[in-house]
Amino acid sequence: MRTVATVLAMAFGVPAAALTMAVPPSLTPDEGAALVRDRALAGNAAYAVVAGLTTDIGPRLAATAPEARARDWMAAKMTALGLAKVHVQTFAVPHWERGVETATTIGTNPQRLALTALGYSAATPDAGIDAEVVQFADLEALKATSQNLAGKIVFIDHDMRAARDGSGYGAFNSVRTVGPAIAANKGAAAYLHRSLGTGPARLPHTGVTRFPAGIPAIPAAALSVPDAMQLARMVRNGPVRLHLVLTPRDLGSGTSGNVVGEITGTTGDVVLTGGHLDSWDLGTGAIDDAAGVAITLAATATINDAIRAGTLPRPKRTIRVVAFGDEEAQGPLGGATYLKGHPEPVVFAVEADFGADRVWSLRSNFAAAAAPGPSTPVLAPAIAALARVLAPLGIAPSPLPAHGGTDIEAAVEAGAAVVDLAQDGAHYFDLHHSADDTLDKIDPAALTQAVAAYAATLWWAANTDANLRPAKAVP
Amino acid sequence: MRTVATVLAMAFGVPAAALTMAVPPSLTPDEGAALVRDRALAGNAAYAVVAGLTTDIGPRLAATAPEARARDWMAAKMTALGLAKVHVQTFAVPHWERGVETATTIGTNPQRLALTALGYSAATPDAGIDAEVVQFADLEALKATSQNLAGKIVFIDHDMRAARDGSGYGAFNSVRTVGPAIAANKGAAAYLHRSLGTGPARLPHTGVTRFPAGIPAIPAAALSVPDAMQLARMVRNGPVRLHLVLTPRDLGSGTSGNVVGEITGTTGDVVLTGGHLDSWDLGTGAIDDAAGVAITLAATATINDAIRAGTLPRPKRTIRVVAFGDEEAQGPLGGATYLKGHPEPVVFAVEADFGADRVWSLRSNFAAAAAPGPSTPVLAPAIAALARVLAPLGIAPSPLPAHGGTDIEAAVEAGAAVVDLAQDGAHYFDLHHSADDTLDKIDPAALTQAVAAYAATLWWAANTDANLRPAKAVP
Repeated sequence: MRTVATVLAMAFGVPAAALTMAVPPSLTPDEGAALVRDRALAGNAAYAVVAGLTTDIGPRLAATAPEARARDWMAAKMTALGLAKVHVQTFAVPHWERGVETATTIGTNPQRLALTALGYSAATPDAGIDAEVVQFADLEALKATSQNLAGKIVFIDHDMRAARDGSGYGAFNSVRTVGPAIAANKGAAAYLHRSLGTGPARLPHTGVTRFPAGIPAIPAAALSVPDAMQLARMVRNGPVRLHLVLTPRDLGSGTSGNVVGEITGTTGDVVLTGGHLDSWDLGTGAIDDAAGVAITLAATATINDAIRAGTLPRPKRTIRVVAFGDEEAQGPLGGATYLKGHPEPVVFAVEADFGADRVWSLRSNFAAAAAPGPSTPVLAPAIAALARVLAPLGIAPSPLPAHGGTDIEAAVEAGAAVVDLAQDGAHYFDLHHSADDTLDKIDPAALTQAVAAYAATLWWAANTDANLRPAKAVP
Repeated sequence: MRTVATVLAMAFGVPAAALTMAVPPSLTPDEGAALVRDRALAGNAAYAVVAGLTTDIGPRLAATAPEARARDWMAAKMTALGLAKVHVQTFAVPHWERGVETATTIGTNPQRLALTALGYSAATPDAGIDAEVVQFADLEALKATSQNLAGKIVFIDHDMRAARDGSGYGAFNSVRTVGPAIAANKGAAAYLHRSLGTGPARLPHTGVTRFPAGIPAIPAAALSVPDAMQLARMVRNGPVRLHLVLTPRDLGSGTSGNVVGEITGTTGDVVLTGGHLDSWDLGTGAIDDAAGVAITLAATATINDAIRAGTLPRPKRTIRVVAFGDEEAQGPLGGATYLKGHPEPVVFAVEADFGADRVWSLRSNFAAAAAPGPSTPVLAPAIAALARVLAPLGIAPSPLPAHGGTDIEAAVEAGAAVVDLAQDGAHYFDLHHSADDTLDKIDPAALTQAVAAYAATLWWAANTDANLRPAKAVP
């Protein structure tokens, strides 16, 4: 690719070497964004950050000692990368840990099924339970049934498919998040479901489930996709009884926390970015979400390096990067904690929590020049400018609205403009929340493309004069 | 595809319906082979056999109760499919079973590594051992070292790659089969290696290892590919100590066995086919080797159905299909036991033990009309005739020699001609010997193509007048 430096040199008659001179040149926000984009493409810290978090620390379940060590690691890394005001915010979260988890069919041909407890699952007795499996086609069928489920193990299969935009997860994740509570409310002894996974590996995918007040928690677990298919075949052949042992423990209250660093701007406003530092306990949390932390941190460090090299001036707005605590179980608590501790207005936010693959789509909730109708979306001038900088990365603007993610939810609700740099999620749910979420699944070239997209977006957002007011029409 | 019946009808002016008449028509061996090929393509029993073995029985480790149940299942299935003289031959084999298997790094950031004991591995004490990891680049480096390995855990990484012909396994499987003995002979406390796997899943691949007389067995295990990569990264970062627990048990002598059925021919000669009924214990043994048993059994049943329908006469040679016992640990013992119990001469043998994918290549050890030189292989007339029948399945003849496989090794050594119907193995070692060897990985259409190839080959071999004398030049 022709570098932006070369293009600028050609366009303005400036020698390319002059663009690394100590006195910051007068670049427009778009030109600066293109410059950091190309610096990121030439090399950045992201892969080393993912490799370090996954190799030195490994799984980082919220409230555990490894999560605490990850905070120390991350604060040291932010400091080493030259970020300012590096600090940790801690907050209390429930401390739940996995125990023994086995399921074995009862009968003349006992077979083990691979499964894993959902986060906040209750435990069976240590000796386990023996119960009959009752399969329902979907949650609607479970809700509608008048069958007596007392003492039964409810089993829900489904047909989640891989999609670039991860839409299958949206369609089916209630099977995990609310299915156990529905079954518990009907007196079931336990709940099993096919993992919310799209890959063929015989590894179950965990994730949080919720039991509303008044509904006692029951043991709840995800079967690997092959094992769910096996159980469904067995149920078709006749009644199936399972011996189920799940012994997770509720260890009371523990500590999670955010790690925060920044490039201090010249005004009081903040551009917020980050991913989450915690991970599920089965894998090493490479794509979920060491990658997101690494992409946003490396993007910030790329900008910081350019400033330290004298190639760019200090940004107008502070670029603040956060490695959020306990996203997986408590969700928006890390983002809310951030906001409570940092009163400076967040005018713009972009999160990375969808893996390590390439960014392919740019969405925003920016105000349009003219209010877009539902069937005639109008690309706001502001996003059009950003889109031009991202186009060489193969990223196209989308008329779909941005929603942000869990960790920036509080900031967006408080009025921040938000952009989604949508990464390709076709393989994300092959790995998500399973033991297969490991470093080897990450393509360094794809990670670098994402860093370039985030670096360009952060610089642009920190310096643009464009109107970033969120569109009222977007929820 | 235009059916052979249609083609024959056009060629000979015979109504197609007449080909299913009760009086067998006079077909050449090649025409009969094409007929059973097309009958197999129209529907066969293979997928139901794999589904039954993997769902009703599941893992079938040699000498265990499930392997015995699989023999009963298989004998009943052969009988139901109308095969003659169905019987079981039992033989004694060592009984080894898996126990606890964990590996955890020792230090400030303990991490679990996914691994599994190799077949015939010794056990650690129940409490495990703590020892330092010493990595060697390959077995040659391990053999050459003068380093004191007493009390150390030897670790061998490697770079096995996927290949259509499975050649990576040939290049690297000594890492598993003889590596542990080399390490034991140098006083190592235990042995770990990167799984002989080519897929990205975090599931280790087991398999047998051997300790020659005089070398005491040590604990030996395969790390999943991602975990071997993780351990290699950790070793690069500094010394690594592991807490290793492996508690497999040697349970003395147990019983394995072959299940044998046939289509009785009009002469005393035998065409031998089959796969192995036992499997490793981690998966349900779908591709290794329920598929091979299913392909050869369904091919035989396809022929049997045609004979029962009056479409084909009884074959000249007996077609005998064997579901062999304990191939995984004891190797050729099932084949040798078959030969001891069945004195009829085996003139031709073809085995299926390379998964469930399509056949792409036909190899033989047939005598050539003229002796082939090393650089000018000449396709024997006999194999050329068979190749013409297989060509519509996308199978090409190869000048490479056939070697058969473990279960027909004894028959081939006793003088049988042998054909390899080489299946596509590009994904075979993604799954082989791991928990991922499950039914869902099998494409029914590919399985059916393989059945058609075996059915055609078996009929042809049972009836051809061609010279099947093995080429002397082939080892």
